[in-house]
Amino acid sequence: MQYRRVGKSGLQLSALSFGAWVTFGRQVGRAQAREMLALAHDRGVNFFDNAETYNNGVAEQVMGDVLADLRFPRDSYCVSSKVFFGAVDKPLPTQRGLSRKHVMEACQQALQRLRVDYLDLYFCHRPDPETPVEETVAAMDTLIRQGKVLYWGTSEWPAEAIHEAHRVARENHFYAPVVEQPQYNLLHRERVEQEYAPLYEAYGMGTTIWSPLGSGLLSGKYNDGVPADSRLAQPGYEWLRESVLGEGDERLRKVRALQPIADELGGSLAQLAIAWCLLNPHVSTVMLGASRSEQLAHNLGALELLPRLDAPVAQRIRQAIGGA
Amino acid sequence: MQYRRVGKSGLQLSALSFGAWVTFGRQVGRAQAREMLALAHDRGVNFFDNAETYNNGVAEQVMGDVLADLRFPRDSYCVSSKVFFGAVDKPLPTQRGLSRKHVMEACQQALQRLRVDYLDLYFCHRPDPETPVEETVAAMDTLIRQGKVLYWGTSEWPAEAIHEAHRVARENHFYAPVVEQPQYNLLHRERVEQEYAPLYEAYGMGTTIWSPLGSGLLSGKYNDGVPADSRLAQPGYEWLRESVLGEGDERLRKVRALQPIADELGGSLAQLAIAWCLLNPHVSTVMLGASRSEQLAHNLGALELLPRLDAPVAQRIRQAIGGA
Amino acid sequence: MQYRRVGKSGLQLSALSFGAWVTFGRQVGRAQAREMLALAHDRGVNFFDNAETYNNGVAEQVMGDVLADLRFPRDSYCVSSKVFFGAVDKPLPTQRGLSRKHVMEACQQALQRLRVDYLDLYFCHRPDPETPVEETVAAMDTLIRQGKVLYWGTSEWPAEAIHEAHRVARENHFYAPVVEQPQYNLLHRERVEQEYAPLYEAYGMGTTIWSPLGSGLLSGKYNDGVPADSRLAQPGYEWLRESVLGEGDERLRKVRALQPIADELGGSLAQLAIAWCLLNPHVSTVMLGASRSEQLAHNLGALELLPRLDAPVAQRIRQAIGGA
Amino acid sequence: MQYRRVGKSGLQLSALSFGAWVTFGRQVGRAQAREMLALAHDRGVNFFDNAETYNNGVAEQVMGDVLADLRFPRDSYCVSSKVFFGAVDKPLPTQRGLSRKHVMEACQQALQRLRVDYLDLYFCHRPDPETPVEETVAAMDTLIRQGKVLYWGTSEWPAEAIHEAHRVARENHFYAPVVEQPQYNLLHRERVEQEYAPLYEAYGMGTTIWSPLGSGLLSGKYNDGVPADSRLAQPGYEWLRESVLGEGDERLRKVRALQPIADELGGSLAQLAIAWCLLNPHVSTVMLGASRSEQLAHNLGALELLPRLDAPVAQRIRQAIGGA
Repeated sequence: MQYRRVGKSGLQLSALSFGAWVTFGRQVGRAQAREMLALAHDRGVNFFDNAETYNNGVAEQVMGDVLADLRFPRDSYCVSSKVFFGAVDKPLPTQRGLSRKHVMEACQQALQRLRVDYLDLYFCHRPDPETPVEETVAAMDTLIRQGKVLYWGTSEWPAEAIHEAHRVARENHFYAPVVEQPQYNLLHRERVEQEYAPLYEAYGMGTTIWSPLGSGLLSGKYNDGVPADSRLAQPGYEWLRESVLGEGDERLRKVRALQPIADELGGSLAQLAIAWCLLNPHVSTVMLGASRSEQLAHNLGALELLPRLDAPVAQRIRQAIGGA
Repeated sequence: MQYRRVGKSGLQLSALSFGAWVTFGRQVGRAQAREMLALAHDRGVNFFDNAETYNNGVAEQVMGDVLADLRFPRDSYCVSSKVFFGAVDKPLPTQRGLSRKHVMEACQQALQRLRVDYLDLYFCHRPDPETPVEETVAAMDTLIRQGKVLYWGTSEWPAEAIHEAHRVARENHFYAPVVEQPQYNLLHRERVEQEYAPLYEAYGMGTTIWSPLGSGLLSGKYNDGVPADSRLAQPGYEWLRESVLGEGDERLRKVRALQPIADELGGSLAQLAIAWCLLNPHVSTVMLGASRSEQLAHNLGALELLPRLDAPVAQRIRQAIGGA
Repeated sequence: MQYRRVGKSGLQLSALSFGAWVTFGRQVGRAQAREMLALAHDRGVNFFDNAETYNNGVAEQVMGDVLADLRFPRDSYCVSSKVFFGAVDKPLPTQRGLSRKHVMEACQQALQRLRVDYLDLYFCHRPDPETPVEETVAAMDTLIRQGKVLYWGTSEWPAEAIHEAHRVARENHFYAPVVEQPQYNLLHRERVEQEYAPLYEAYGMGTTIWSPLGSGLLSGKYNDGVPADSRLAQPGYEWLRESVLGEGDERLRKVRALQPIADELGGSLAQLAIAWCLLNPHVSTVMLGASRSEQLAHNLGALELLPRLDAPVAQRIRQAIGGA
Repeated sequence: MQYRRVGKSGLQLSALSFGAWVTFGRQVGRAQAREMLALAHDRGVNFFDNAETYNNGVAEQVMGDVLADLRFPRDSYCVSSKVFFGAVDKPLPTQRGLSRKHVMEACQQALQRLRVDYLDLYFCHRPDPETPVEETVAAMDTLIRQGKVLYWGTSEWPAEAIHEAHRVARENHFYAPVVEQPQYNLLHRERVEQEYAPLYEAYGMGTTIWSPLGSGLLSGKYNDGVPADSRLAQPGYEWLRESVLGEGDERLRKVRALQPIADELGGSLAQLAIAWCLLNPHVSTVMLGASRSEQLAHNLGALELLPRLDAPVAQRIRQAIGGA
């Protein structure tokens, strides 16, 4: 495994990591989850991402049970949670958002579900227009000083809001966010490459990126339509399906244009797409989702492809997706 | 239920909430208290107000026992206490006021009586001329950093003292108060509307207001004299009786002038008075007192009246009470 | 009992309080200690002073056992300890002074001996020339933020060192000392009245004064020589004996000149001396030592004498002791 | 024993102290370790140095077991650990360095192995170019405020990095390092005497120096080659052997030139070398390594030699080693 510092911080995450996403406890049972976490840890993956909202807390429970069962040394991995969305069975305004009340309570609940004494990373899953940034940064600062969180970050915040968080932290001697968790892949590049560009230099922030396969499109698996067992076919994810396949023809054309490059390099389209993310030095880790061990093992193989993505190959990829 | 942010903070309280006041443990027994808390929570009320001085701590004990019994999720409600007055069986100078000693000890005692790990809101019940504001703000700051309190506020402090608290907080990087708990109703408007006006803008403070019915006068129940089971008839509350009915004729004239408006809107006078408070955008929540479930349910009905209080109606109300 | 604020702080101590001094556990047994603490608390005394060095920790143990036995409400009294001198059976350099190591360890030990969760007041018993003031103030600040101490103070520090402590506190956002514990009596006035004068105004500091009877001289009991059961006759206190009686003639002349005033007011010389200390508004409390209940009860009677010490009487006292 | 303040701090360490080094749990068994710690403590040694990396944590375990067994009063000694190198069986990037993650986890692990509630001193064993100084200083600050560490320091950091740590501490109100742990002996003087010179004055830092015998060369025991049971002969320490004997002739010449001085003063060469270190007022303590009680007792004898190292002797020593 290759490890990367999260921006300029001292935390080093594995270049490929494992996000729990919503499937834990639904399509993915405890046995499968255990097998995948064991495989990932064995391959050197040291970051397991989660959130209060993933399967309404069940994803954290499953991960917590499996981690307790596997007994990895606590210093051999990092676990995260994210606060903002709450859970569908918790619809009250005090049960979501970034108020001090919800941030403190959500952290305590995540620690219990994940069965750990502290979170290595704690993310504000979205900006909360109904809470002043001061209140949220102060709550994160308290959690860090209390030892319940080691580092905190944002997820899908506009750059402007992140600037604001840093200003508040500086003025109040609060701990500042060290990481963003944005979507990033061959078909979704603007935020990470343009909008966030000033953040890397100004604050030394890193990124833990999600959806490297564009919700599966970049694996090529939707080329002939959505399989019945895909997440896109699950109830409640119609929005996701539309966003993935909505401008279908153009996105599909790009994906198909990438296939010959993957073939030539001797890897799959998915591996190519994952490895490509790591060409960006501001990507601290690429978070892989998976519902089967074989899929996870295959995607971890992207690291072997990475050395073959030299400058000419990168140039061909850019041309295929129509970028500069 | 409708929810409102406490000023610019991220905490959202139900527009109508439930204050324990002194009756818990006296006129109101555990069974009644349980019934009312269950009803309120079921209707979406998420804020239960209390104070060390209410029935000398018994009100907190009753509420704590009932909350423990009802097992509401901790993130589905907010509980407060207030420090300053102490209890009648605790007459020593270290057992009241806003010294660090009393603030810290009173909080610990409130947590034990209420059977919670932290207070969502902790109020300084009155300003303490015998304690420097620095000492009180510092104590509140310590409680917040220790995780025993989430937000702190003042109750019936002169605006000048609140300005001072904010100045002290800013200069020392202490947590500042986010909320005031003043009296506010159709017959008692000056402090909330005039004196506190600069606080809403300058600090984003909200208010949790008490006595929306002017100690009952606005329910119309004193129009023909004080009933024997009213709080005003209890020993020790002569001062309250005098203050409510003292300028009786004039206040009664206003109350009577409101009755036709309530009738026309299809609500009771009490519901009209409660709903009127919510027309003020700086009111975060109107705290209802009650000694019977029926009374509480009736008063919660004020929310249904609220949409009918449009501009012309508000104008008629202002004229009835002789305001501008 | 009369209560006084400790300087401008919100802490109110009884005008007369009870210092454990070295006799607890030596001349004074547990039964006597229990009787005296019960008497004092019953009379409204709310401050029990102690120190790590008093009888090498045994004074704290005795007081802790007795307090636990008497079960006074924790908010009805204040308990203090002092750090600096260590104990004679602890001669190592890490076991004394005001280093962070000793301050933190001494506090923990005092809490255990006194059987309380926090000290109301914690004093630096002397300045420590071998520790930077920054280190000591920082350690006190940590103890306050951890909730192990409510207020801290100094004892017999030169005014200059106290100024320095306040400067360090201000610059680092540390908690500053609120109280000094100096010697003060009719024959020992300079430090409290002159040297500390600027501290009261600048920082609002109060004083908890010791030795109001000048180690017994002002009780008149040494007029005819030292009784065998006096503390001055104990081994190891020769220095004290010399300092009390050394300039005997002059000090005795003053004491004798006070006797007629006491007689005239209807009190004892001891009561007069104690009450006189309370004429100074910067004296927050006069700490009484005692080895028998009768003695303590008698000295508490000084409060009854206090109203009789009007301006003309005060003038006569000043003349008797040769002051301005 | 003689005690010295650690720079301008209030912490006083014994002039000679005991470093656990790697032999604990390897050549040195529990019984020997117990004997040596008992001897050292009996002689007034109050500082026992350790590190996470010494024998991969086993050195700390052995010391912790022996300290628990010997039951020295906790205030009679200081124990340290150091963070940076991790352990050979912990090769992951999160298991070493000075990231917040590793600093916090390493401290917790050291506390468990050493079986203490807090470390008196906690050192950053080397600078970590892959972690910003801000992150490390902040983590140390958190540990101090949480009460898990009393003082923190650096070990073998370039002076420039120490300046940077102080700048960060000052700007953020973080606790600053009070001590360095460098190598220092008659043949290795530059860093302590030249590079660190500005640190003593600017920040009042002290030093806990290691290798006073230059890995044994200054004991004279390598004059005729390396004995089989020497640490230099252990696998994995070839680098140490080379560095000690590499420029053999010149260093040996110097050592041999010192022998007559030692003889004349009536001490051994080792004692002379150790005592010489204490001539430097910026040396707070000289840490002795030992694998046998006799060796430790002999080296502690250096203190008796110290008074004989007057100015003329010091001058002869300087000439012998070719210094100015």
